[in-house]
Amino acid sequence: MNNKLMLMIPGPTPVPEQVLLAMAKHPMGHRSSEFSQIIAEVTKGLQWLHQTQNDILILAASGTGAMEAGIINFLSPGDRVLVGCNGKFGDRWAEVCEAYSLTVERVTAEWGKPLDPEQFRKRLKADSDRQIKAVIVTHSETSTGVLNDLETINRHVKAHGALIMVDAVTSLGAVHLPTDEWGLDVVASGSQKGYMIPPGLGFVAVSVKAWEAYSNAKLPRFYLDLGKYRKAAAKDSHPFTPPVNLFFALQAALRMMQTEGLESVFARHQRQMNATRAAAKALSLPLFAADAAASPAITAIAPTGVDPEQIRSVVKRRFDIAMAGGQDHLKGKIFRIGHLGFVSDRDILTAIGALEATLQELGYENFTPGAGIAAAAKALVL
Amino acid sequence: MNNKLMLMIPGPTPVPEQVLLAMAKHPMGHRSSEFSQIIAEVTKGLQWLHQTQNDILILAASGTGAMEAGIINFLSPGDRVLVGCNGKFGDRWAEVCEAYSLTVERVTAEWGKPLDPEQFRKRLKADSDRQIKAVIVTHSETSTGVLNDLETINRHVKAHGALIMVDAVTSLGAVHLPTDEWGLDVVASGSQKGYMIPPGLGFVAVSVKAWEAYSNAKLPRFYLDLGKYRKAAAKDSHPFTPPVNLFFALQAALRMMQTEGLESVFARHQRQMNATRAAAKALSLPLFAADAAASPAITAIAPTGVDPEQIRSVVKRRFDIAMAGGQDHLKGKIFRIGHLGFVSDRDILTAIGALEATLQELGYENFTPGAGIAAAAKALVL
Repeated sequence: MNNKLMLMIPGPTPVPEQVLLAMAKHPMGHRSSEFSQIIAEVTKGLQWLHQTQNDILILAASGTGAMEAGIINFLSPGDRVLVGCNGKFGDRWAEVCEAYSLTVERVTAEWGKPLDPEQFRKRLKADSDRQIKAVIVTHSETSTGVLNDLETINRHVKAHGALIMVDAVTSLGAVHLPTDEWGLDVVASGSQKGYMIPPGLGFVAVSVKAWEAYSNAKLPRFYLDLGKYRKAAAKDSHPFTPPVNLFFALQAALRMMQTEGLESVFARHQRQMNATRAAAKALSLPLFAADAAASPAITAIAPTGVDPEQIRSVVKRRFDIAMAGGQDHLKGKIFRIGHLGFVSDRDILTAIGALEATLQELGYENFTPGAGIAAAAKALVL
Repeated sequence: MNNKLMLMIPGPTPVPEQVLLAMAKHPMGHRSSEFSQIIAEVTKGLQWLHQTQNDILILAASGTGAMEAGIINFLSPGDRVLVGCNGKFGDRWAEVCEAYSLTVERVTAEWGKPLDPEQFRKRLKADSDRQIKAVIVTHSETSTGVLNDLETINRHVKAHGALIMVDAVTSLGAVHLPTDEWGLDVVASGSQKGYMIPPGLGFVAVSVKAWEAYSNAKLPRFYLDLGKYRKAAAKDSHPFTPPVNLFFALQAALRMMQTEGLESVFARHQRQMNATRAAAKALSLPLFAADAAASPAITAIAPTGVDPEQIRSVVKRRFDIAMAGGQDHLKGKIFRIGHLGFVSDRDILTAIGALEATLQELGYENFTPGAGIAAAAKALVL
């Protein structure tokens, strides 16, 4: 049986029917008063989701485009930036900075380990003449399932005074991220993650302090010039032609999230992470990230005695579940289960059940059949 | 009666039901073999639509983002560029170039008049040491309804040797644009126009000659770096997370266009332009662009004795038809009727009928009631 695909990857994530149907409406003019009302509503919803009063700008772009906008609008050629690198996305932001002739210093950790806040503290403390203009941190590292300790790193950044720029692509809507309380200057994210809508929209939240830096920032940009978006947003408008149907989807998804409540959304992701990890342990499948640094959005597993690519292949062919593989040097070493966005507790049981069946089919014998489901079910008790 | 909106603006354009429904499918993983097949199919379809064997790269971006990518990937700071400016979009490409520190020379014409190819010939001839690296031309100027004589301008560019970069945002899929036959180096467009799909995708066709320039081009870019897209496209893949649902829409729309046939698509746009213009003349409504320079995508009308903003307001309120206003200094001076993309001959009769009724309601008496429909109907005879 085909065409009953279930997405358990960290994006695109599953999309609710009511969001798909909202998106399937006929487009409207992007300069109409009706569309302005939608811009106004979704902007308020985004502020709620980001826990902020800051401007939030909506781009037709992927998460990478949003993050690039969040970097290049606030810096000038040669500016020093400190970039946390412990996975594919941290590395990517360093590459973006280098493409724009910024002076990049990396704070690294092995893939699968969290960034060490103490390293940030030391580097920032050593920068007594405040040459470091920005610190870039990936909150949830999608490539490894690690949640970096943004709160602590940010405390050190605040003590220094640099801008803090956050890749929240797979953390926003999955874990508590109080933009205003923590004073985050730039928070970038993408629609195909916690937002529960298809890819195509990028979001950048910008603090007052970042806007001050904007006025002196000299890196070239036009389509990604956030000042244009801010000016238009002040009139509930958009500087270019926005993807209106994805805005319809965003409106529907934000309403659903507001009905569920932010605390409940976070609790759901936490619970599903716990269940997935408990199941992996019960199946003797080693978790790639330690419990203390686990992302509520995605769980990476580094199996021994069974090939992760075979697991992905069988679980797709037999049960039509898409799980993610490893990226770059982790290809063939890990597989990743996304539990982000429109994922119900039932979906976790489904995925673990299918994983158990797949392990049996592959002749992996290092577990008691049923142990994964038993552990997941226990972790899902409310 | 509400919610029976009809779009007669130059984008977003109407979207066929089968395209909307294709878009409403559940997303799939963008790294799956199923999605690779879609990338392969739509890329072939885009080459057919562009009449080219060149690479065509698909970005999550508006038409402006696509055009910016088409410019910045092939040039270096200080490079001289010649930009045709006879409307809002020509002006915008000059601004993009200036944002990236290119040396911009404008070839201007009054808004509503076409660019003069002779001016390009003279400027290019005077550049005997080949300092001009690129010539940027807006084919169909959406803000005025003017179709520039790209074919002749391009002949002069070819004689010189600079790159020719074309904004085909409202011409692609509306008028004959033989990319390979004319040797166009960069052709940029956006999804919400002739493509018959919602906004959110941008397209850039790139010639071999442009790729040669790419290898020495030094303007900074990352998200808009077309080399990344080319590398991924060679494997039927995408460098970032593409808007998969808009790809579903694109696949459905390209199939429809291929069934209709390219010549029929162009003939339809030509016929509807003729009908709209014939109706305007019969209603004594002055056309903003001359017949010889009229865009098959959009007709701008500069009425006398009746306020164009009132026409737009009444035709929207009474008949739920969205027509476009003037932009910048043309606001309140013209209104624009889009006949681009999924527009049937019936839609033209509808729009003209509603326009006549609106003129009557506004007390405009400079026409014989029914004359607009009579003229349009005559022009629509096959």
